[in-house]
Amino acid sequence: MSLDKAHHYQTLAKHFQSISHFEHLSALGDWDQATMMPIGGGEARGAAMAELATHIHNLKTAPMLADTIKEAQQEALTAEQQANLREMNYQYLQANAVPADLVKAKTKAAYRCEQAWREQRKHNDWQGFKPNLETLMSLVKEEATIRAQTLGVSPYDALLDKFEPGMTTAKIEHIFGQLKSWLPSLIQQVQAKQISEPRYGIPAATASDQALLGRDVMETLGFDFNHGRLDISSHPFCGGVSSDVRLTTRYDEADFTSGLMGIIHETGHAKYEQGLPLAWRGQPAGLARSMALHESQSLFCEMQIGRGASFLKLIQPLLKQRLGCQLSHQQLTNIYTRVSPGHIRVDADEVTYPCHILLRFEAEKSLVSGELAVADLPDFWSAQMQELLGINTDGDYKNGCMQDIHWAVGELGYFPSYTLGAMYAAQFKQAMEQRLGSVEQAIETGKLSDVMTWLEANVWSKGSLLSIDELMIQATGETLNPIHFKHHLENRYL
Amino acid sequence: MSLDKAHHYQTLAKHFQSISHFEHLSALGDWDQATMMPIGGGEARGAAMAELATHIHNLKTAPMLADTIKEAQQEALTAEQQANLREMNYQYLQANAVPADLVKAKTKAAYRCEQAWREQRKHNDWQGFKPNLETLMSLVKEEATIRAQTLGVSPYDALLDKFEPGMTTAKIEHIFGQLKSWLPSLIQQVQAKQISEPRYGIPAATASDQALLGRDVMETLGFDFNHGRLDISSHPFCGGVSSDVRLTTRYDEADFTSGLMGIIHETGHAKYEQGLPLAWRGQPAGLARSMALHESQSLFCEMQIGRGASFLKLIQPLLKQRLGCQLSHQQLTNIYTRVSPGHIRVDADEVTYPCHILLRFEAEKSLVSGELAVADLPDFWSAQMQELLGINTDGDYKNGCMQDIHWAVGELGYFPSYTLGAMYAAQFKQAMEQRLGSVEQAIETGKLSDVMTWLEANVWSKGSLLSIDELMIQATGETLNPIHFKHHLENRYL
Repeated sequence: MSLDKAHHYQTLAKHFQSISHFEHLSALGDWDQATMMPIGGGEARGAAMAELATHIHNLKTAPMLADTIKEAQQEALTAEQQANLREMNYQYLQANAVPADLVKAKTKAAYRCEQAWREQRKHNDWQGFKPNLETLMSLVKEEATIRAQTLGVSPYDALLDKFEPGMTTAKIEHIFGQLKSWLPSLIQQVQAKQISEPRYGIPAATASDQALLGRDVMETLGFDFNHGRLDISSHPFCGGVSSDVRLTTRYDEADFTSGLMGIIHETGHAKYEQGLPLAWRGQPAGLARSMALHESQSLFCEMQIGRGASFLKLIQPLLKQRLGCQLSHQQLTNIYTRVSPGHIRVDADEVTYPCHILLRFEAEKSLVSGELAVADLPDFWSAQMQELLGINTDGDYKNGCMQDIHWAVGELGYFPSYTLGAMYAAQFKQAMEQRLGSVEQAIETGKLSDVMTWLEANVWSKGSLLSIDELMIQATGETLNPIHFKHHLENRYL
Repeated sequence: MSLDKAHHYQTLAKHFQSISHFEHLSALGDWDQATMMPIGGGEARGAAMAELATHIHNLKTAPMLADTIKEAQQEALTAEQQANLREMNYQYLQANAVPADLVKAKTKAAYRCEQAWREQRKHNDWQGFKPNLETLMSLVKEEATIRAQTLGVSPYDALLDKFEPGMTTAKIEHIFGQLKSWLPSLIQQVQAKQISEPRYGIPAATASDQALLGRDVMETLGFDFNHGRLDISSHPFCGGVSSDVRLTTRYDEADFTSGLMGIIHETGHAKYEQGLPLAWRGQPAGLARSMALHESQSLFCEMQIGRGASFLKLIQPLLKQRLGCQLSHQQLTNIYTRVSPGHIRVDADEVTYPCHILLRFEAEKSLVSGELAVADLPDFWSAQMQELLGINTDGDYKNGCMQDIHWAVGELGYFPSYTLGAMYAAQFKQAMEQRLGSVEQAIETGKLSDVMTWLEANVWSKGSLLSIDELMIQATGETLNPIHFKHHLENRYL
């Protein structure tokens, strides 16, 4: 491929490399804000980050891009360059889809709604939250409608597409319809089975001991500390850039189990980032494929590996050494696979978690289509919680429809990613086991690295070079098939 | 002032505000690199920081600036706006002075020279260092010559001007000439006096205990932790931005005294940054006046306050509490005012330190004028060290002319700032004492905040609104007068 023949493509590659440099700084600013920055630094940082966001947006909507992309599409490119060009075009379309005025109006409404929500949630103040959410929701609908026109899809599909390119309402309805047909009865069966199991107390552990344990467990999972760190933030996340992944968690000194599993979850995200293709760093094709696939990697680490008996057996001596924890690996497994319906999504176990997503998917879809008014959201919520999990949430807004930050910041279309991710993860495990044999066995015999090597070869190293369907077919022989998730839950819990 | 009448000025204010936002991100990137970043993140960070530096340079040399500045100079502006415009013009001239090609060539040569120097210094390898320094020095001379033409001054003056606007070789020769006339004999007198004094052992202290002590001492000095942090780096510095000052230090577990004084020194820099005028944040007039003035504030904290008996008495209980240190405040004062000529500038005491600067000033001046060749630097060094401090450094390059990073990165013109800063600090103290009475007495009677309030009113809050001479006259009644530094040393050490 001579440079002359593909010089429009080369111009674009340079331009997107430049964008990635500014996105590096944006990721650093976000991480620092959540982990290191003193509160008094917030105002100046906010102004600097807003300036940076505007600059990045200007680069992504540079007037030369439309023509240069068209010209590059006529050039003789390798298959990988074509994939990169496709991703460039996708980013360009996404950035150009929504008028700057609407972006600003939504950002402002989202900021106001979120700030108020932080207090309103504490006070169960639905009446205060409702008008803010209504204002925000009308802007979300406007955004969805405009995006829909650009992409030639329905408004809610346009929102789904931001996080899982190519995903549609129809596909999710089909997948979630199946899920709904068997999940509630499975939950009842598991609860009946677990009712007679013993309960174990969790020993206290200092934050600093938990942090040392966290590092050990991250090293066990192959996290590369030459290209990343572990810190503390009030909401755990995996940030930074591929060459320097910034992972965070929080520690509860009365119960180390959630913090530890949080680290394992975020390490899954981090392994994906650290394993993205080196040759494509700084280019759109080198980025993670989608948010659902990202969740699949965190959930692979947490659910397929982390809550399995073999992994808990592997790390049990570390818990003993770092925390003085006397629980056996069987007791740890019991703790980490306990199923118990509850109000809060982020505290849910592996089996009941998808019910929280089914509810949110139905709500979002209806809010965007207009079938559901914001004012009717609490009743809708109560009815669904009753139906799916047998829980009464009447009047409990703060543990009901006000519990998540997503809607308070106008982020609709993300929730399905969590359960799609769990399904991808189960499907990867099934395919992997056809090649490697049982994952539990591999961990038991000291071959956890084989599991990671498979994920690297089939998922991480693909970046965005393939579509999600292409990736799934190459890795597992089929597109997303939720039956593997059902089998996984049945095998582990029945 | 109506906006219409000063709309060119307003355009500039907006432009420079934007530059300051990107400089905020640059400061964050630098701090993170020195304190938090894992080594493997360096390559991508380097590329992102280079992109950012180019962007900032482009903003500072934007083609519209020349005309807009000229137009703004015709507008009706307040005195403060005029000062801000003067600083904008100065930044514009500085950024435009040197052609981009030369900047790149120097950056590259400096990077190569510094990287090699890090190893060569360890091995006392002057022969390896010499050719790199020769290459770099010819680029420094080229830069100095071009800057000199823009400013209409001599080449070395043009380098001095980067760090202390308005300072000239002639002024420094006059000031340093006086210093040289009395300092060597003062050193001999002090040494004769101290020869019979007892020596005290320093107790060991863990890094974490020293960090807690450091925080306490910073709080004693009024450091605002709502707008800043304390962390660890291999070379202590004061970075970040005014609203979020990032201070670093390093801890020697066998000798806490240097780390503690390092924190006090950097806190002086930090107080200056935190005290810069709020109304001018983000504008050139809101920045620190000069590097010499910055050093004056760190040295005020370290020398005028920190090594004084009253301050050491004030913090002695903290040392006892945090480190279990049993030294009395008299013993601490003895340790912190011990005078002993040595090879290394950064380890030098308050009295012998200026000798290291006198030597470097003479060397730089002659290197830039061409009177001294790089090859003759070691002989020049030995002769000067013998004359000024009575120390033989023949053949000891690593503790001689290879000890500092400044020349290895092509930074000439900075060294005088250290001693000018010490002199400014002594002059501030003298003026302050005319108003407040003895500083030692103020600290002794719990009025350290009065000292800080004077500095804030007379130095910090002025930003760059005044020239250095205007600032000195308003604060002390005269321009820089080195006699106060002489009096300070005589009072403390004789």
